[in-house]
Amino acid sequence: MNQPFPHRSLRLPADLRLDSGRILPRPTIAYETLGALAPDGGNAILLFHALTGDQYVARDHPLTGKPGWWARMVGEGRPIDPARHFILCANVIGGCMGSEGPASPNPATGRPWAIDFPVITIADMVRAQAALLDSLGIGRLLAVIGGSMGGMQALQFASLYPDRARAVIAIATAARHSAQNIAFHEVGRQAIMADPDWCGGRFLEAGRTPSAGLAVARMAAHITYLSEAGLTERFGRRLQERDTLSFGFDADFQVESYLRHQGMSFVRRFDANSYLVITRAMDYFDLAEPHQGSLSAAFRGASARFALVSYDSDWLYPTSESKRIVQALVAAGAHASFVELSSPHGHDSFLLDSPELNRLVDGFLRAVEAA
Amino acid sequence: MNQPFPHRSLRLPADLRLDSGRILPRPTIAYETLGALAPDGGNAILLFHALTGDQYVARDHPLTGKPGWWARMVGEGRPIDPARHFILCANVIGGCMGSEGPASPNPATGRPWAIDFPVITIADMVRAQAALLDSLGIGRLLAVIGGSMGGMQALQFASLYPDRARAVIAIATAARHSAQNIAFHEVGRQAIMADPDWCGGRFLEAGRTPSAGLAVARMAAHITYLSEAGLTERFGRRLQERDTLSFGFDADFQVESYLRHQGMSFVRRFDANSYLVITRAMDYFDLAEPHQGSLSAAFRGASARFALVSYDSDWLYPTSESKRIVQALVAAGAHASFVELSSPHGHDSFLLDSPELNRLVDGFLRAVEAA
Repeated sequence: MNQPFPHRSLRLPADLRLDSGRILPRPTIAYETLGALAPDGGNAILLFHALTGDQYVARDHPLTGKPGWWARMVGEGRPIDPARHFILCANVIGGCMGSEGPASPNPATGRPWAIDFPVITIADMVRAQAALLDSLGIGRLLAVIGGSMGGMQALQFASLYPDRARAVIAIATAARHSAQNIAFHEVGRQAIMADPDWCGGRFLEAGRTPSAGLAVARMAAHITYLSEAGLTERFGRRLQERDTLSFGFDADFQVESYLRHQGMSFVRRFDANSYLVITRAMDYFDLAEPHQGSLSAAFRGASARFALVSYDSDWLYPTSESKRIVQALVAAGAHASFVELSSPHGHDSFLLDSPELNRLVDGFLRAVEAA
Repeated sequence: MNQPFPHRSLRLPADLRLDSGRILPRPTIAYETLGALAPDGGNAILLFHALTGDQYVARDHPLTGKPGWWARMVGEGRPIDPARHFILCANVIGGCMGSEGPASPNPATGRPWAIDFPVITIADMVRAQAALLDSLGIGRLLAVIGGSMGGMQALQFASLYPDRARAVIAIATAARHSAQNIAFHEVGRQAIMADPDWCGGRFLEAGRTPSAGLAVARMAAHITYLSEAGLTERFGRRLQERDTLSFGFDADFQVESYLRHQGMSFVRRFDANSYLVITRAMDYFDLAEPHQGSLSAAFRGASARFALVSYDSDWLYPTSESKRIVQALVAAGAHASFVELSSPHGHDSFLLDSPELNRLVDGFLRAVEAA
């Protein structure tokens, strides 16, 4: 798990009332910014991160030393450019990179919240970030943008605050979690909670880490981020540093070795209770639910221009779901564009080198800026 | 885990030489039969079971009390009919329903084989069943038939013994495990081996059961047996015996409750080391590999008539893989038919009510019998 690190953060001036009815007392929000806010405030872009992402969008990650998760999209000369934009990304509440989450001290006890951290929703995450905008004096945004869970937040933001962003870009995402989406998350949660080192959720105080359970959860989820064709292209049935089968349970195949590595490196940077809380928020996500099941009602009055992007090999949040969202947006009278991009890499395509996505985001933002 | 139960079984008269080079000393094979062998022996059908199946094809399962796994296909008046056929199904070696497996006593020590049970292959399973046929005095079969891992065995049987069956029916199966197939199995194995109650594989002697790990493995695998559309149709986002979200980690959604039930009931009937051994055999399966990568070479000289059946919603062993097999069969000069059936239920469709499959198997067998 992550060591204490001086993340840039702010304590919200007011308590946060959650969808569960519980109160999060003046939560801390960790965030990063790039670029300068224009005098009229009109160049601000709020980026939302995905399940295991964080606020380190472009700069190297302080724990892993790796480039920021969207360094291909955000940076000098990139579509989201600090020379032109004021770029803000906050760690979601429930996270473990400085924002109030299960590893943070519970103000009522001084000990980690752990399993007592409230179960939150995507809307709760978004309200916390809107409060951050207020605290930073940022009014109407140029754009809100996110992929995967970040896309859910972008759509939720547009629903909660129909006038607060001029553009919404939602990539490889969904307006609700499907039964299959929930099922995969449930496997991960059960793996974590079955690990004796989870200690009923109080592993931090016990000085332990449910590494094995969290690694299995990550491995299962990781398969859903890739496509069958992408896995075949990258690994096929190739053996890992051997010429013949071992007739044992070591990682004979490259794909096994890769998955194990994914599991182990994840454990070093992520809190198991954050994984429980954030997956739960995603499973609870159904933008239409508070509107009697009408997704277009969720977007009523939206003034933004929307761009929905899906990938043809993404089976986690497939193209059909993006089309459903666009249909609802159009029915709500919103300006909505939709593009399906082709890639063999499945859901994770938006995090990889995707020149078409870069061109699309660039063109869309410039058009909104010029409007 | 299963209690001792007097499975019908036979100890092979000779040792079994395995693909790993190891020897399984005179293994026990548990099997069930239905119907009577015709005087000319020409009405015998060998059925192969899938990963978590067993020899109880049609009669009620002795542990669960549930109907046999293919009672819809096998029985009086069904396509595979004891009034007309002599029907044989054996538990695979490595299994846990009476055939030699990790829970069986290791003759060298008298204690359970446990993790010392050899890692086997699909071909090893098939050779053991051919030896069973020899012991029972059964020569050329009318047909070998199986779905999923049973289909792999049917194809492997045709490759090893090109003259020993007049018909081969392989349903919802593959001639090799893909990277994605391996990846899902690896998640399950890691979940089992991460469970402290696995005890380094020696849980039986320790009087423990890695229930949590085995349940997680089953849950992850079970998702792959169903389709996204099937899960949506059956469960959607419906809540389990409640009207509102719990804002906790209980099974809020029906799909969670269903998966947990699948996990728990599996643990009561299956041995965790058998799960490791059999998934490994499936991952090792690549029918073309011993033939310099040529799948058609694997079928050279095959005299049987083949029927390959896939389901359009099966993403575990998709239609494209059945088509690849048929192409190789035709290239090898074999008689091969292929049918893709439509079903919303994914890979498990062949185990469910599937009238088209019944008609197809019935017609195909009658044609071969009449030939």
